[in-house]
Amino acid sequence: MDMRQCIQNCLECHSVCLETAASCLQQGGKHAEASHIGLLLDCAEICQTSANFMLRNSNLHKSTCRVCAEICEACAKDCESMGDDQQMKRCADMCRRCAESCRQMAA
Amino acid sequence: MDMRQCIQNCLECHSVCLETAASCLQQGGKHAEASHIGLLLDCAEICQTSANFMLRNSNLHKSTCRVCAEICEACAKDCESMGDDQQMKRCADMCRRCAESCRQMAA
Amino acid sequence: MDMRQCIQNCLECHSVCLETAASCLQQGGKHAEASHIGLLLDCAEICQTSANFMLRNSNLHKSTCRVCAEICEACAKDCESMGDDQQMKRCADMCRRCAESCRQMAA
Amino acid sequence: MDMRQCIQNCLECHSVCLETAASCLQQGGKHAEASHIGLLLDCAEICQTSANFMLRNSNLHKSTCRVCAEICEACAKDCESMGDDQQMKRCADMCRRCAESCRQMAA
Repeated sequence: MDMRQCIQNCLECHSVCLETAASCLQQGGKHAEASHIGLLLDCAEICQTSANFMLRNSNLHKSTCRVCAEICEACAKDCESMGDDQQMKRCADMCRRCAESCRQMAA
Repeated sequence: MDMRQCIQNCLECHSVCLETAASCLQQGGKHAEASHIGLLLDCAEICQTSANFMLRNSNLHKSTCRVCAEICEACAKDCESMGDDQQMKRCADMCRRCAESCRQMAA
Repeated sequence: MDMRQCIQNCLECHSVCLETAASCLQQGGKHAEASHIGLLLDCAEICQTSANFMLRNSNLHKSTCRVCAEICEACAKDCESMGDDQQMKRCADMCRRCAESCRQMAA
Repeated sequence: MDMRQCIQNCLECHSVCLETAASCLQQGGKHAEASHIGLLLDCAEICQTSANFMLRNSNLHKSTCRVCAEICEACAKDCESMGDDQQMKRCADMCRRCAESCRQMAA
């Protein structure tokens, strides 16, 4: 796993989580529940922060990658629990991929 | 209007908008509508960006203050339109105060 | 110009500006001057903010795209004024491309 | 330690670190070294992220507080190592205070 790929995954995961939050707010119902929207916003923000640490070539990027992996994993599980929705599946997949690469960077 | 006060207003407005978004998502109903939550998140983010430009002592802070004033004004109107809610009123007041100080900084 | 392409340009410009700032700080000398590093950080941040407004599908994205175009243009000029450096040229090119797409989105 | 105080410390630490980075770039010399500026920018960003998680009332705020405490501690040490400078001392003190409150929130 090289750092460039991990940065790319964090940026994509950030984008997908923000788009998913907007789309869930439009849908309403269980998709717009506070805990779900909140987790998507958490995940978007920590992915952005994690990417920025790597883009700055920071010595501390392992710490931010570690917490990013943890939050992406939680977001993936939450999206999967929403059932058979296309956007939820896409978001869960991206979160899993980002979590995996952040775990490798943090190792 | 000095810059230090404008920074303070932007940081407070950012905080109030994020808290208000979280509280609106908890309330649900019209408070959790996509356009309302979206505007609160927009306002929180541009306030943060505007504060950061001033904290960096950027020559370009007038441009970010100008757009911050515009978005705070829109957010204040939206919060007021929600009626007699305490949190909405508090958020609208803070947005108005931030808009006013950003307008002065941008002048 | 579709919005998806503009988001992509903002995210890439954000990344290139942060990497360039880190590399300029390593080089030192005129590359590490406060005004140059400051402008790169300004440009990185407004690109991120502009991308996030579009990712949230915000009605106000034209305003953030407008100020993003202005700041990217200033950053491009500053990078070009640094002379024949590869990284500076790469950053200037990306800033021009991002400015152009943001101008079109703001129109 | 209540959360409100920790949010306030994170926001103040974020502000002080950004101002300190700008002032160090102006001073030049060892103050403008890549590792020092980079650490100040890292600290500013994780403080902002940590504050935002708490403002959103996120269940995951302990994880972001934990990494924030670690990075604030590193930044405090780095600022202290710069010697007898007023701004460095002010920044180190704020970083220590923020680290302490984030550690308590993370416990």
